[in-house]
Amino acid sequence: SRSIKLAVIPGDGIGQEVVAQGLKVLSAVLPQDVKLETTDFDFGAKRYHATGETLTDADLAALKPHDAILLGAIGDPSVPSGVLERGFLLKLRFAFDHHVNLRPSKLLPGVATPLAGQPEIDFVVVREGTEGPYTGNGGTIRKGTPHEVATEVSVNTAFGVERVVRDAFARAQARPRKKLTLVHKNNVLTFAGHLWTNVFNTVAKEFPEVTTDYIHVDAATIYLVTDPARFDVIVTDNLFGDIITDLAAAVSGGIGVAASGNINPSGDFPSMFEPVHGSAPDIAGQGKADPSATVLSVALLLRHLGYETEAVRIETAVSADLAERGTTARTTDEIGDALVSRVVAS
Amino acid sequence: SRSIKLAVIPGDGIGQEVVAQGLKVLSAVLPQDVKLETTDFDFGAKRYHATGETLTDADLAALKPHDAILLGAIGDPSVPSGVLERGFLLKLRFAFDHHVNLRPSKLLPGVATPLAGQPEIDFVVVREGTEGPYTGNGGTIRKGTPHEVATEVSVNTAFGVERVVRDAFARAQARPRKKLTLVHKNNVLTFAGHLWTNVFNTVAKEFPEVTTDYIHVDAATIYLVTDPARFDVIVTDNLFGDIITDLAAAVSGGIGVAASGNINPSGDFPSMFEPVHGSAPDIAGQGKADPSATVLSVALLLRHLGYETEAVRIETAVSADLAERGTTARTTDEIGDALVSRVVAS
Ligand SMILES: CC(C)[C@H](C(=O)O)[C@@H](O)C(=O)O
Ligand SMILES: CC(C)[C@H](C(=O)O)[C@@H](O)C(=O)O
Repeated sequence: SRSIKLAVIPGDGIGQEVVAQGLKVLSAVLPQDVKLETTDFDFGAKRYHATGETLTDADLAALKPHDAILLGAIGDPSVPSGVLERGFLLKLRFAFDHHVNLRPSKLLPGVATPLAGQPEIDFVVVREGTEGPYTGNGGTIRKGTPHEVATEVSVNTAFGVERVVRDAFARAQARPRKKLTLVHKNNVLTFAGHLWTNVFNTVAKEFPEVTTDYIHVDAATIYLVTDPARFDVIVTDNLFGDIITDLAAAVSGGIGVAASGNINPSGDFPSMFEPVHGSAPDIAGQGKADPSATVLSVALLLRHLGYETEAVRIETAVSADLAERGTTARTTDEIGDALVSRVVAS
Repeated sequence: SRSIKLAVIPGDGIGQEVVAQGLKVLSAVLPQDVKLETTDFDFGAKRYHATGETLTDADLAALKPHDAILLGAIGDPSVPSGVLERGFLLKLRFAFDHHVNLRPSKLLPGVATPLAGQPEIDFVVVREGTEGPYTGNGGTIRKGTPHEVATEVSVNTAFGVERVVRDAFARAQARPRKKLTLVHKNNVLTFAGHLWTNVFNTVAKEFPEVTTDYIHVDAATIYLVTDPARFDVIVTDNLFGDIITDLAAAVSGGIGVAASGNINPSGDFPSMFEPVHGSAPDIAGQGKADPSATVLSVALLLRHLGYETEAVRIETAVSADLAERGTTARTTDEIGDALVSRVVAS
């Protein structure tokens, strides 16, 4: 009999509420013979305040034997900016080598978008997750003085760029349109830009069926609001990916429905799935959070573990729920229950 | 009698066409007693192909004695990416210490936006222009091999950050809403982020009337499409500014109307004014380009040189022209003529 060993990190703020719904839907969709074993981890602001710890080596060792990780959200205004981001979120992505940061954007029928004319949006961003300006390289001298100098070093390796570019080509190849766009700023960041462009063009030769395209990151933000239909799969650096996926989420229904996977395709470490949104402390504990992004992240998790049918059932359920959503506000729990009913009936 | 010594760089592609209109409008709006002396410079792709030069020390010396520079656009697909950007555009911004890169965004009545519901948009981005990831610091080892490592170093100094932050506070102070938003990514780029945040908070004390706000760059792209009205003045780093001002242009009428100034407030070197759009080689020479962005850049130029009344007359003319624009396409020249008539009549 099959089993899924799932590490669950509800985290801070609305993280608790949305993860509860994600787990409900996960249990409901899994075939009877699949045993779901969950282990809860208490990472986040509360633990940081109590112990000063964000993510220890022992924590990493405890997470490692799991098949996947489901994360709600980490972050709280009581913790200085950067502490949990660098100390937990990025530490985990780097420690488990989550180099494929997968962020699909699909404007589902009936979902509101800030764009006029309800354009067609259905693309996937493959954001590099372990390099670029996110490495924490750099430093500060003469801190706090009028002569302070602070540097941030973006580190880009052929190894790191090639594996994510190849992953993106494979994903493009598997989609009907078979189109891959590289987003960078190779006219200004010429060192990294040359590496990315060169690797991209080299790997392209292995995928003759995939149409390729290059767009500067600044121009990409224009297309995301004027012609998002032009995108199929996008591959980009860690920071550019961070920026354009928030914009992509905004135009395709908002961060309430934006799911993501921090994937290590090698399987050497568990991949992590999380909504793109944060902990939203302003609405935490009020049952107001939309769990759809977390539930869709569960679908990505299932697809990653080979449960394609179940992933599709969840996506169909969320899609139907969104399409039929009236104007009456529902609680987090009510939306979760509605999604459970739909997957059970499917 | 007064005079303006203007260096004119039409540049590549549509640069020629739009600059011609900018100059027409400039001549038309200037008071009789102001003598306009223009000197043309042939920088761009053609000169690069002919001589291999992009911008020499002699060129810089020739540009220096001018009161201001008007630039059309530089860039052509025949030149490898980065050569003209680094060799001309950025070289000039750095050599003349254009640290205030000013990019206003205003959605004028009657102008199309990709956003639903015609939101109110009227903000100014003050983009740092001489530091950050744009310095060209960094490098490559083992180029072209599977072991290549390429770095990009973002350099941020208290000196450089403080002067642009102070400029932005002064601009916010002078506007009715008096609100300044810092856009950065201080939760990940903690070295530079700390410097920016710290300087911002320190300078804020000198401007007690200005309301301040901080937003991560990724979240800023969300607000730019869901709630652009929240912004009044934004101050941000060179790269973030590059990205968000293209998005800002897109939502507030497109790059056809986005003007910019590369300003050195000290006056030690001439400031440069240019449309945000590029050379658009695909439509060059066809009289299809909209000169509005260049004409609005001329308004910024005049304001910078102290001709506030004339700047406003140009802005009013462009605004009226856009509001009354029918669906009949006009040529670049026709739009320029219409703007000339309006400023003459005003
Ligand atoms: C919270 C932050 C560290 C993170 C990032 O910058 O990657 C977030 O914005 C995201 O996109 O997952
Ligand atoms: C062409 C390029 C060097 C430039 C930049 O990145 O600054 C452009 O995008 C801009 O915004 O003026």
